[in-house]
Amino acid sequence: MENEEKEKLLNLAEEKKYRQLKEALLEINEVDIASFMEELDSEKTVIVFRMLPKALATDVFAELPAESQSHIINSITDKELSEIVEDLYVDDAVDMLEELPATVVRRVLKNTTPDTRKLINQFLNYPENSAGSIMTAEYVGLKKNMTVEQSFAYIRHHGVDSETIYTCYVMDEKRHLEGVVTVKELLMNAYETRLETIMDTHVIKVTTTEDQEAVADMMNRYGLLCIPVVDSEDRLVGIITVDDVMEVMEEEATEDFEKMAAMLPSEKPYLKTSVFQLAKNRIPWLLILMLSSTITGAILVKYETAFAAVPLLVSFIPMLMDTGGNSGSQSSTMVIRGMALGEIEPSDVLKVLWKEIRVGFMVGFVLAVVNFIRLMIQYPGNTMICVTVVISMFATVVAAKTIGCTLPIGAKVLKLDPAIMASPMITTIVDAVSLMVYFNLACHLLDMAA
Amino acid sequence: MENEEKEKLLNLAEEKKYRQLKEALLEINEVDIASFMEELDSEKTVIVFRMLPKALATDVFAELPAESQSHIINSITDKELSEIVEDLYVDDAVDMLEELPATVVRRVLKNTTPDTRKLINQFLNYPENSAGSIMTAEYVGLKKNMTVEQSFAYIRHHGVDSETIYTCYVMDEKRHLEGVVTVKELLMNAYETRLETIMDTHVIKVTTTEDQEAVADMMNRYGLLCIPVVDSEDRLVGIITVDDVMEVMEEEATEDFEKMAAMLPSEKPYLKTSVFQLAKNRIPWLLILMLSSTITGAILVKYETAFAAVPLLVSFIPMLMDTGGNSGSQSSTMVIRGMALGEIEPSDVLKVLWKEIRVGFMVGFVLAVVNFIRLMIQYPGNTMICVTVVISMFATVVAAKTIGCTLPIGAKVLKLDPAIMASPMITTIVDAVSLMVYFNLACHLLDMAA
Repeated sequence: MENEEKEKLLNLAEEKKYRQLKEALLEINEVDIASFMEELDSEKTVIVFRMLPKALATDVFAELPAESQSHIINSITDKELSEIVEDLYVDDAVDMLEELPATVVRRVLKNTTPDTRKLINQFLNYPENSAGSIMTAEYVGLKKNMTVEQSFAYIRHHGVDSETIYTCYVMDEKRHLEGVVTVKELLMNAYETRLETIMDTHVIKVTTTEDQEAVADMMNRYGLLCIPVVDSEDRLVGIITVDDVMEVMEEEATEDFEKMAAMLPSEKPYLKTSVFQLAKNRIPWLLILMLSSTITGAILVKYETAFAAVPLLVSFIPMLMDTGGNSGSQSSTMVIRGMALGEIEPSDVLKVLWKEIRVGFMVGFVLAVVNFIRLMIQYPGNTMICVTVVISMFATVVAAKTIGCTLPIGAKVLKLDPAIMASPMITTIVDAVSLMVYFNLACHLLDMAA
Repeated sequence: MENEEKEKLLNLAEEKKYRQLKEALLEINEVDIASFMEELDSEKTVIVFRMLPKALATDVFAELPAESQSHIINSITDKELSEIVEDLYVDDAVDMLEELPATVVRRVLKNTTPDTRKLINQFLNYPENSAGSIMTAEYVGLKKNMTVEQSFAYIRHHGVDSETIYTCYVMDEKRHLEGVVTVKELLMNAYETRLETIMDTHVIKVTTTEDQEAVADMMNRYGLLCIPVVDSEDRLVGIITVDDVMEVMEEEATEDFEKMAAMLPSEKPYLKTSVFQLAKNRIPWLLILMLSSTITGAILVKYETAFAAVPLLVSFIPMLMDTGGNSGSQSSTMVIRGMALGEIEPSDVLKVLWKEIRVGFMVGFVLAVVNFIRLMIQYPGNTMICVTVVISMFATVVAAKTIGCTLPIGAKVLKLDPAIMASPMITTIVDAVSLMVYFNLACHLLDMAA
């Protein structure tokens, strides 16, 4: 929705032209209505919400942020509330309940039918980030002796409540999953065809305890619109749809970004996370890395006499440290992302290492040459210092690439998250290596005692 | 597919038990067959490919990497080739052609019907990463005076070739998009209902030149399974399906990871990118950052006398630089990712800044206290040096958070990619600031002349 359009709606609300506002709202999408309602004060939010037709109101409700939902729940009657909750898809209702304050949750659960309540509670009990926690229980379940015509009749009758009707699951009496049939296949076959002759019995499925990231990978790999979730006894309990999986993919990528920048992952969007929570997520790794970099400091102390004799040596420390850190981060980022996408396996370690060493030689050579030219111009006559810096630079880049590509793979082998072996950690390690090489070289080439 | 299972298939191929192999292959998914075929040598690849039923062979072909496709194309007859190309969905065919060597492309295009060739050429001409380049032309197009029954008949007749049939588009004679109707809606309405009474006329659509990232955002926001693509005169030319968009999302996240680690984005997966290409992507930013960090070096030279007088000062440089860089990267990563997801807008700059300053104070305080305790134990008696280090640490963290959150937003305002203001760039800038503060403080507190 354009900002202009939103402005117009806000003006209508401001001037209390509710009839015109209602007409305008009916023309637009529920996502846009929700985005418009977020701009309203809490009193107007409820007024606008009440003017929407019931079905649309539920759709809009699912799109609102937790605060607005909570405010609406507190302002409407129990009857209105129960209608909304019953109309929400179970996974949307679960999402909502996870974010609302406990008193509001109690009121919501009080106003649902026992069936819905049971479903919601069941979902709330699955471990966080598991397939069970993101699945929905609304799917089309068919029997194998049904015909295409009977299936259509069943879908027509039961389908409106199902989040996706395009993939139907065939179960026996004990709800064991026997096959899968898409509406496309139903449409392409004659009305009298029995499902057992057209259903695909090789169903790709996941269990309730499967990690959501694995589910996303699977749906991605096989290009599925939805995937069935079964319990430990292979009984169908729910499905996961592609839109939930897209959210999971974004969340997982965000988590990797955060971890790779030395933060604990956060639950909420940045602007909704409290300052205290942000600080809490950031302090642990900063502390660890701060204390680790005292090792690098200790190395500097050890070579005190070297830079006391040739103070110019100190001025190249930032360049060596930064370039080493950056070169290492490049390699570790490529490897971490490659492993997250399943493009790189731990068994590829030698292939990766051989590649990075060659890249390190090329990159190191170019940087060394550029540096040598610059240094010879800037400090003519100090040839041996220039040679020291240039060789250290080359060695730093090659070492950084080697360390940067092996540590994330090592972490994976040890069942740790490779993302912790990203830029900050690699930088700290490479810094120490780089300065050791630099001052050792300086001592030898410039004929000094350490 | 389990490795075990793959092993079994490979053994069958090895022992030339092709009958058993074929039976086993018919039981599994096309994605898994392709993954199995990647392990075979090129001769066996063709043998296995030929034993697959025609429809399955095309599906498997679409999943194979470019090298295997190219090898198969070179080994099969023109008739076999033309059958495959005609059966592929146009967007898969385009994907394939973009990666094959020119001679192979010519052979492929020679063996397609003029219609398919025209379609493919049309797609190949849309700018890279545009909606046009990822769309497919196979969709279900209906007319508004058709009934539900007629629509089903049309879908049954034309639908098999359409990549997704679940969302149907209603067009006038000039192919202008008039509305959209889902198969779910068709199923829920009586057979004699006319489409114009049930179709949704507020179609969410994109133009051919729209950036693919914007398309992904849009489908994500509105939770669409597919989105129509129109040309500049609002005529329907294709659709983009959710599985293509999931690929786009992964690509875009990968690109951000690469840019944020100071690399030019690469086109291919890591293991398929040449060493030379990898080096070429990494050198430019390393050079820029290497030369920028000489500024930090120059600052060190300026304060030469300070660390000549108190050599211990040098040993805290790595800790200050690393902590500053890490603190700044944390902030910039949060802001860059927040903007990529549309959670943070440039207009939120003051909100973000106020948040980061408070976080900076909290984090800086904790790090300073821990540091103070450590230093007082390690260097008893050097109180003023400890105070200098601790105040510098606090100032560095606050400055790093401030710089880290404002620069990416600034880049966005200047229409630059915020991702370039990530860890490496922020680190270089914060390093210089941090050392300036440190040595200035040292000169004042320790009563030295700069």
